[in-house]
Parts: sequence; structure tokens; C-alpha cells
Amino acid sequence: MDRTVTDALLDLVVDWGVTHLFTCPGSTEASVLDALVDRKDLELVLTTHEGVTVSIADGLSRITGDPSLAYLHANVGLTNGLANLYAAQLAHSPVVVLNGLKSTAVQSRDGFTTARHTRDLVAQFVKDDWQSLTDGAVIEDVNRAFGLAVAEPAGPVWVGLSQDLLTGPAGAATDDTRPHRVDTRVAPPAATLASAARLLGEARAPVLIAGNEVGRAGAVPAMVALSERLGAPVLMEERRGFERAGFPTGHPHYRGEYDVDHPLVQAADVLFFAGARVFHEFEATRRPALPPGASVLHSHPDARELGRVRGVDVGLVGDQRLVLEELARLLAGRAPTPLPPAGPHPAAAPDPAPGRLAAGVLRPVDAVRAITEALAGSTLVGDATTAGGLLQRYADKPSPESFFTTSSGSLGWGMGAALGIKLGLPHRHVAAVLGDGVFQFGIQALWTAARYNIPVSYVVLNNERYAAVGAALRRFNGRAVATNTYPGTDLAGPRIAEVSTAFGVPGVRVSGLRELRDELRAARSAQGPVLIEVMTDPDDFGP
Amino acid sequence: MDRTVTDALLDLVVDWGVTHLFTCPGSTEASVLDALVDRKDLELVLTTHEGVTVSIADGLSRITGDPSLAYLHANVGLTNGLANLYAAQLAHSPVVVLNGLKSTAVQSRDGFTTARHTRDLVAQFVKDDWQSLTDGAVIEDVNRAFGLAVAEPAGPVWVGLSQDLLTGPAGAATDDTRPHRVDTRVAPPAATLASAARLLGEARAPVLIAGNEVGRAGAVPAMVALSERLGAPVLMEERRGFERAGFPTGHPHYRGEYDVDHPLVQAADVLFFAGARVFHEFEATRRPALPPGASVLHSHPDARELGRVRGVDVGLVGDQRLVLEELARLLAGRAPTPLPPAGPHPAAAPDPAPGRLAAGVLRPVDAVRAITEALAGSTLVGDATTAGGLLQRYADKPSPESFFTTSSGSLGWGMGAALGIKLGLPHRHVAAVLGDGVFQFGIQALWTAARYNIPVSYVVLNNERYAAVGAALRRFNGRAVATNTYPGTDLAGPRIAEVSTAFGVPGVRVSGLRELRDELRAARSAQGPVLIEVMTDPDDFGP
Repeated sequence: MDRTVTDALLDLVVDWGVTHLFTCPGSTEASVLDALVDRKDLELVLTTHEGVTVSIADGLSRITGDPSLAYLHANVGLTNGLANLYAAQLAHSPVVVLNGLKSTAVQSRDGFTTARHTRDLVAQFVKDDWQSLTDGAVIEDVNRAFGLAVAEPAGPVWVGLSQDLLTGPAGAATDDTRPHRVDTRVAPPAATLASAARLLGEARAPVLIAGNEVGRAGAVPAMVALSERLGAPVLMEERRGFERAGFPTGHPHYRGEYDVDHPLVQAADVLFFAGARVFHEFEATRRPALPPGASVLHSHPDARELGRVRGVDVGLVGDQRLVLEELARLLAGRAPTPLPPAGPHPAAAPDPAPGRLAAGVLRPVDAVRAITEALAGSTLVGDATTAGGLLQRYADKPSPESFFTTSSGSLGWGMGAALGIKLGLPHRHVAAVLGDGVFQFGIQALWTAARYNIPVSYVVLNNERYAAVGAALRRFNGRAVATNTYPGTDLAGPRIAEVSTAFGVPGVRVSGLRELRDELRAARSAQGPVLIEVMTDPDDFGP
Repeated sequence: MDRTVTDALLDLVVDWGVTHLFTCPGSTEASVLDALVDRKDLELVLTTHEGVTVSIADGLSRITGDPSLAYLHANVGLTNGLANLYAAQLAHSPVVVLNGLKSTAVQSRDGFTTARHTRDLVAQFVKDDWQSLTDGAVIEDVNRAFGLAVAEPAGPVWVGLSQDLLTGPAGAATDDTRPHRVDTRVAPPAATLASAARLLGEARAPVLIAGNEVGRAGAVPAMVALSERLGAPVLMEERRGFERAGFPTGHPHYRGEYDVDHPLVQAADVLFFAGARVFHEFEATRRPALPPGASVLHSHPDARELGRVRGVDVGLVGDQRLVLEELARLLAGRAPTPLPPAGPHPAAAPDPAPGRLAAGVLRPVDAVRAITEALAGSTLVGDATTAGGLLQRYADKPSPESFFTTSSGSLGWGMGAALGIKLGLPHRHVAAVLGDGVFQFGIQALWTAARYNIPVSYVVLNNERYAAVGAALRRFNGRAVATNTYPGTDLAGPRIAEVSTAFGVPGVRVSGLRELRDELRAARSAQGPVLIEVMTDPDDFGP
């Protein structure tokens, strides 16, 4: 059989290092599925919803740093994948989305599953979007898309591929990917780095904030070296923007999450936000989230992030590893300031009044502590709206591969992402910790987990509530609080463990700490996916 | 407590006749949920995914013709609802989408769950999109949106409402909806109608094609009158574009679905497409879908539809009831042509070779026939990719409220839409007939069905396949056919009835016709939602 454009396309993606083709296909993908019949170098991973197609690709890219491939079907498949594409974008995850489109004639006629402005749907979630116009352009367009996706700062790219452009002969289309693999990292000018080093070197009480980009750039050793050189305590990027660890939480310099009320922040004269966002706000700050007196240094690979909410004293655009290694070098001669004494353990929560709970009702905080203790050494994927904050606080994060979450607010992301993360970390136990609301959004991931026997442990904290909505009503402090009725928050009903079992992922429901610990222990050595449903206090709306 | 903008907003939507507020809320909807605490005139219907929020509203509007309200949360909630919003758009369903957005300050800062170009996401699926700029503008903006949604041709409208604009005092905002209720129907010019009547009157062998818009406009009696006056046979809008019946399938003039190969179409000298699309193509036609000799009349409320694929001899823009009643009047004096004899029943399928199946394996065609027979008199909602065509063919459609489907290709639409349709038809049995692939896309509807005890019967034809993808691979006729391996089509695994039961909707799995009939009979009188999983032949990829 003659080599077709589709064959050349699959050769190209394999040459880019792609190992898995994640898809939820339709008829427009027939040529691709057909070409996969003979191939051994590319594993088809079927998903049953496009939310999973995108999040599993994103999860894999977060581990490898390499481009991954999500192949979506038509306009409806694209829209279904957008919320998790937003998650990939915020994480600078190089997910290449190829979008099978109806044949060109059908598009102009507003035919079945066509959109008048497909690119408008996706443009704001990707670095670039392009629809191939001829069959001769497909290979070049996709090659360019991969190159752009991995160019720093990395991120998703979209290419629309009309069905009729894929079936002709490949012709002389070039598919050499090597000339497109450019080291696109950048460093700030030497003078700017020198200013930053001077400010840090002269600081009396510097505090470093380790952001997501430190972990992504492989810059944790440089971050550790800098903090040790300065004798500076390190905080993690603040909760709402956090995606992965930029500093080992077990390091003696680690002092918890960034918060303007943190005593070290209040006492700081220089704050250095390294690869963090300042800030990814949940609500507009009623008071400044930066202390009044401190100088602010901010480094980030994306210039858009500098000065987004407040201006900076020194801004550094570039790769975090290049920035941090150079700063550590420039500060080589400096004597460390004395490290401020550690306060109470940053994960030490105030003890809630014990009498409030009915006997046997598990508090979310106790469930989270049991999970983080029992799963120390596992990689955790957090996707819980209310318990997520607790989870971030209590989970040990010895490396950037130990904890992942999304700052997108796209519920359900974690269920697919955990599968991709596990594919990238075959020798490590991976557990996704989810809310019960989240579970319904990502439920189709169970099918893929079961089908491919991907041994991820799903742990669902089931408080039978949209507790985040309840918390918002508490803050609103109106009629809901006055009458103690919280419309739109009661999620009770599904027996999640049974749903999971029926999907092919053995599920178990627990309601006590001892059972929970036993099940977590069993999950760590399970040979396939499992789900633990943990019943928690429905009246605890969280902090 | 002072009347807030939110209170005025809810007064306004109630004044527009809205009875249910469908939502999957987040913290941005706190003021709305809080205001619902005291209200008795607006029922909150919680959904656990925005796909359901939109499709349940769409279903209700398809019954009532009145505007419905889907309240979505932030950018991620909007994207999750888009595929079903596309379905509402194609059905001219006046769904008003209110989209809670983060407060204005957070938006400009690219904060949590904000989009840089929110309106770009939704613009192509709605008649208009607008984000309120001040709190004083909210009521006017939403009032205008409702008026535009119901203006003919009706359709969805979107308004973005930033959280901070809803909490202030209502002030003097007007909320009178009456001046916005305008009869916006239009009729073609008299001379154009006369040309159409002349062409029909002189036709030797006219064929009428009853489109979706006939049913939506309440024009079925006029369609019947016209066909009887002309003695003309009537076909239903072709399969891929079909949404609801424009002609009673039990009427002696009914002759099946439009197809260019239909003997009546081949013999026609005049084809009149009334309120139908010509055509909503699945693939570009390899040969014309209109016979060469016939004149074409086409009426539709949307001028965009006229001449989309091929030009027309007479085009009529307007409301189908106005058009058809006037044509019937103009043709009052005409003697009917003799009605062509009925051929074989249009639902009579060629009998497949009986030896091909393992004993006890149910063919989709037999399952569909059992369903349509047992559920005669019920309203059916079809959402099955492969079996959908069979279902459309075999289901009796005595009225436009007897059968609904979507031409959007948005899988899972029917699971939520059936709930809205049932809310609009409380005294009628409603059943959704689904594929197993579809089931996973709309699964969250089970939660809402169970929570509000909405007695919809879900019937899932489980062939454990993406059979439509298998059929596409068959048509592609490449390596998959040569090796008899069909990548990306095997969906086996979930025990759908058990999943449903665990969600709170009692499910049962059947694999024989007798059991199926028994369960369908029981479902008709069930007091709450039920699900019947029907195991069918996995190797039947359909026509």
C-alpha cells in the first residue's frame, strides 16, 4: 500500500518521541485508526470522553516534559476537551492537539459536526492554532506545532486536520523533526541578574518562594543551593496557583505555603518569587497580598506574569534553572544569614473542637492526614475543591514529581491526569485524591484505567456536598446562613465505590480511619486500578 | 433585607415564565443560590456537569417553546456546556445561558477560572453574547437576552455576569418583560407565496418533505392540510438533519424518510422542503442528493439555510405555520392528485441473514423494533450513534412531541434532554434510547434524575462498541478490513445497569427480547427513573 499522509503523520509524531496516541475517535479519524493497525511504535489509548483524552496527555507531559498527543474528534470533541486544555496551558504542558475535522466541502456547508469558527474555540488555550489548508501542508504544519509546543515557555498547540487531507499519497513531505528541536530557553541580561543578586545579597531577611516553574525546569537543586547560600527560608507558591513543588518540603529551609500573613513574609525585607505567579487570584484581594515594606524580585519564563497584579523591583524573564544557577553563582561568596527558627510544623492545623462531630464521622482533615501519611513516597494527584487545600498542606513533596494539581478549576482533571502521570512513572505508586463532585466530572477515566489496567489508586473524599459552594455561601453570609439552608450544595446519592466497581475498577467504601489506612496500604501494592471512597463529614465546608 | 440586583434578576426570569433554574454552581453563584433560599416561584435543579445543565434546559424549551435558563459557572463550566449548547442552537431552542464570572478585578488579572476572551468561546453557538459592564446594566442586558432568545428564529443567547455586579442594591432597574414579548414571526412576500403555490398547484407528482421547523412552529396541522389538498406524499427530513417530526407517521400520506433514492423522490417533479435543512451533510455527497429533474421549493425561518448546498427554484423565508397555512389557502381550489400507492412499510428493513448470529445474541434492529413497539405512545429521545438511524425509522411519531433527537453529534445530549422533556410533559412517559458510548458522555444526568425522582426510562443499547467508528473503518476499507481488527472501537467493560443502580437509578441488564419487553412494560409505569441495559450484537456496525 502506498504511504499516505496519515502514515507520514504518524511517522512524524513517533519521531517527536510520542509513544501514545490518546483519542476518543469518530468517523473523521478512520484513516488514523486504520494506519495504527500495523504499527508497533505507537500505542493507541482509547478514552471515552475528550476531557480524559486531554488530561491523560497533559499528565504524561508533566512527567516527561516531552510533547504528548491528544487526537480529538470534530467540533463537539474539541469543546469537550477545552476545560482540561486550559489546565494543560496553565501548567505549560506541551500537549499537541490534533483535531479531526469533517472534509473541507462539508465544513463550508455547515454540515454535521462542523463549526463556523473552530479556531475561536481553542485559540485562547493554545500557543498557536492552525487548520491545514492542503494535504501537502499537513506534515509541515504538525511538525511546526510540535516545535512550538516544546519551545519555552512550553504549552499546548492545536492543528485542525480535515479528514480528506489525510488519505492521499504522502509525496515528498519532509518529516525530519531534528531541525525543529531548538534549545529555546532564555536567561535575563547579565546586568539584571547582577541587580537581583545584589538585592538578595544585601537582604537582611530574604524569603524565597518556590513556584511551579522551578519544578518544571528541573531547577530544584539550584533552588536548594540558592536558599542554602542565602540562609533563606523557602515557601511554596500560594495555594490557588500551586501546580507542583519547587522545593523539597522535607528540607530544613522549608516553611510552608506563601501567605501574606505568614510571619516570615511579614518580617521579610526581600521576597523572591522564583517561577511562581504573583498571584493567581481566587478573589480580588481586599488587602494587598504583599507586605508593604519588602522588595519584590520575580522571575518567570513568561513575561506576561511579571507585574501582573503589582509591579516588581527586579523582574527576570527566563528559564528558572538558568536564572537560579546564575544567582547561586553570583552569590557564591556571601555568608548565609542565620536561618530563622522553624515555627510549628507548617502542616500543623489548629485542632477543631472535638465535640462538634457525631461519633464515627470522619473529619476531612483527619482523612487527609491519614492519606498523606499512608501514601508517603507515592505520587499524589490532587483534585479536590475543598479538601485540596488540606492535601496540599499535608502532603510531603520531596520532589517535583511527588505532587501534582491544577490551578485551572477544571474539575475532573486529576482522574485522567493521574493515568498519564502513571504512564510516565511506571515504577512509582500514583494516587489521585478527589472530591465527590470532582469524581462525577472525571468519571470516564475509570473506563480507560480499567481497560489498560493502569494501576492508579483513586481516593474519593465523599462529603456528599459541593462544600466549596457551601463555603462561598458562608462567606456571603446572607439568607443561607440565616436559615442554615444551603441550596445547590447537597450531592448525596451516588455510591461511588459501587459505580467504580461496575466500571471495572474495584471500589470499596470506608468510613473510619483504620479501614482507610488498611485500604490505602492494599492499594499501594495493587496490580491494577482501585478506588477507595472515604465518607467524611458533610457539614464541614472547609476553611 | 434590601432588594439586590440578584433579586431583581430572579424576578425578571420568573416574569419571563422561567420555572426552573438549572445549574452546576460554583462560588461565583453564591448570591443567586442565597436568593433562592426564600423563593417559591423558581425551582433550583442541581446538575453535576454542565453538559446536563444545558441539555435539560434545551429539552424543556423544546416542549414549551418558552425560554429556559441554564446558569453556568466560570470559564470551565461554560466550556463543559458548549457541545450541548450547539445542540440547542441547531434545534432553535431558546436557552438563555447566564454565566457567572469572577469579579471584574480578577478577570483583568487573569485570575482563577477566568478567560481572556470568554465571548469567543460561546459566540458561534448563540444569537448574541454580551458581558454586563455595570451592575446597573444587568437587568436590561438579561431582559434583552430573553427577548432575543425567543425572537424567531429562536435560539440560545449568552450573558456573562461578573460576581461583583450582582450583590448591590437593585435600584430603579426596570424588569418589565411585556414590552419585549414581540411576535417576531415573518412571512414571505405574497408574490413569492403565489409562485410557490403555482408550482405546487401545477405539479404532476409533488413530494413534500416535513422538516424540524414544522413541528417547532406548531404547523403540523397545516402540513397535513397541504398534503391532503395536493394529494401529495410526505417524507420526513433526512436522517442526519432530523430533530423532531413535522408530520404524523401514521398518516396515510406518510412515506418514510427523505432519501434521493426513494422511488417517490426519483419520480417527483416538484420537491417542497418545508422547514427542513437541505441538507445537514455527514459527508460531502459523492453524487447529488437531489434528483436532476425536480423543481425545488424550500421554506425555512433562517435565510441562511436557503440554497446552502444547491440553489432553489422558489425560496420562502418565514415561519412554517404562516407559510403552510397560506399555501393551503392559495391551493384551496385544487383537485388533489391521486396519492401514489404505498410501497412496503417505510420501516420494513431487509431481513438480515439469520444464520450469522450466535444463538441468543440480540440484533440491534430487533431490539429497536421491540422498543418502538413496546413504547408506542411514549415520547422517545434518541441519542444513539449507530442504532439512532434504526430508531428514527421504526419509531411512530404521531406528533412533534413523540420523538426528539439532535443533529449536533453531541453525544450524551439525550440523557439530560430527556429530563427537561419530561419536566415539560409530566403526564407522558418519556424514554431515552441511548448507545453505550453515549451513556458515558451523559452519565451525570443519572444523578439529577435520581435526586429529583424524574421518571425517565433510560434504555441503553450496549453493543460494547463505538460501532459508528467501526462502520467508518469499514467504509474506509483499508488495513482494518483486511485484517479484521478495528482499533478504537472496543468499548466493552462497564456494567451499565450496575453503574446506574449505584447512581440511584435502578438498572437491569437484559439480553433477550422477552426480558426486554417485560422490562419496558414495567418502565412505563415506574414512579421514578429506571435504566434498562440491552446487550446487543457487538459485531453489527449498522448500516
